[in-house]
Amino acid sequence: MRNIKIIIEYDGTNYVGWQKQINGIGIQDKIEEAIFKITGEKVNLIGSGRTDSGVHAKGQVANFHTKSSVPGEKFKDALNTKLPWDIAIIESEEVDYDFHSRYDAVAKKYSYLIYNNATRSPLYRNYSYHVPYVLDFEKMKRGAKYFLGTHDFASFAGSKNVLEDTCRTIYNINLSHKNDFIKLNIEGNGFLYNMVRIIVGTLIDIGRNKIQPKEIPNIIIKKNRKFAGHTAAAEGLYLEKVYY
Amino acid sequence: MRNIKIIIEYDGTNYVGWQKQINGIGIQDKIEEAIFKITGEKVNLIGSGRTDSGVHAKGQVANFHTKSSVPGEKFKDALNTKLPWDIAIIESEEVDYDFHSRYDAVAKKYSYLIYNNATRSPLYRNYSYHVPYVLDFEKMKRGAKYFLGTHDFASFAGSKNVLEDTCRTIYNINLSHKNDFIKLNIEGNGFLYNMVRIIVGTLIDIGRNKIQPKEIPNIIIKKNRKFAGHTAAAEGLYLEKVYY
Repeated sequence: MRNIKIIIEYDGTNYVGWQKQINGIGIQDKIEEAIFKITGEKVNLIGSGRTDSGVHAKGQVANFHTKSSVPGEKFKDALNTKLPWDIAIIESEEVDYDFHSRYDAVAKKYSYLIYNNATRSPLYRNYSYHVPYVLDFEKMKRGAKYFLGTHDFASFAGSKNVLEDTCRTIYNINLSHKNDFIKLNIEGNGFLYNMVRIIVGTLIDIGRNKIQPKEIPNIIIKKNRKFAGHTAAAEGLYLEKVYY
Repeated sequence: MRNIKIIIEYDGTNYVGWQKQINGIGIQDKIEEAIFKITGEKVNLIGSGRTDSGVHAKGQVANFHTKSSVPGEKFKDALNTKLPWDIAIIESEEVDYDFHSRYDAVAKKYSYLIYNNATRSPLYRNYSYHVPYVLDFEKMKRGAKYFLGTHDFASFAGSKNVLEDTCRTIYNINLSHKNDFIKLNIEGNGFLYNMVRIIVGTLIDIGRNKIQPKEIPNIIIKKNRKFAGHTAAAEGLYLEKVYY
């Protein structure tokens, strides 16, 4: 058996998320179907983690075991001919048999796009979070800095979070502003369920002057979801990169 | 009767174009329906020009006459509540009764987005033209300069072009490059049918070394469509602005 690692870009708009749900099709299913068409094997595709419905990826990572003799780097083009237009393999390679996309991930990078204009945008409706309120960008930047470093992020975990250890380390967090867009880049050793979206929701509440930047350390200390801001919409979130 | 001018952003992916066709719904129809829901009137919405299926707009302009007493600037929010998510009014105002979106337009600005990567992009599939070949960007830039000024653009008109006078003036043409994207901005006093897409297709052929930059003046002189490059895909084209 060989082990194939793939890097995937997808538009999450038309899926229930990475993983199959009772109510619809997951991105994982579509890729497993494509692998079946190429290899004739029903594989179990292991993703680096799940993404919710509407969340996008530019660099999701997954791996699967196969008896196929297709060279690792050839899977990219072969699978792309079988995948729908909203999913593409951007890299493929054979890796050590032991490599595991989820367990071996040491860090992840996400980005989040806010569209900040009084009127909604048809062109960005599925690719950004529409915030029609005036936002104080400089305050948001000051607030973001408090997330850096190692903290217990229990206040920033959605109710579906099942991880017992809620301590995580944020290596980088950066906000930039161009025209009507505010973009967050965030890198950490791991993220709890909805953690990026709750951080963004909290930063938006800071931008709206509902929370002050210096309150962030207190919100973290509370270890209680109800003290943080709202959960920002799925469609603004992009899984950019998984580090191994 | 009053005359209302609206500026419209739309995602052209799910429409047959600005205007209704036998085989589907136009953006114009959707806006006329929304106006009917607000005013009870079946108006004839006059656009600055048509856009093809898949072509987008950030600043299409249209106007309509109405007996309604809704203030001009209020139409924006009122219509947006009745429009689908892929169409939005970004400005509305009452204008002189004589104002005509098409006849009074003195210039237009378009942009065109090329995604230049060996692999297709799920996230940009409807919003850019995927060119998988290596492109010589500097050559494309040199080629673009030849379009500046007043020329007979008959070589750059699609077969559906019905305009007798094929002379047009290009005021600005600019190519920029960032990561995997090449973006064209072009401004002129008017554009023939498919003119921007044929200019882009010709620049791509220059980037692929199939046409040399200095051949452009000769292609223009021929006044024959067959000497120019291919017609670039609709999904990369954006109507940015109409000037009055």
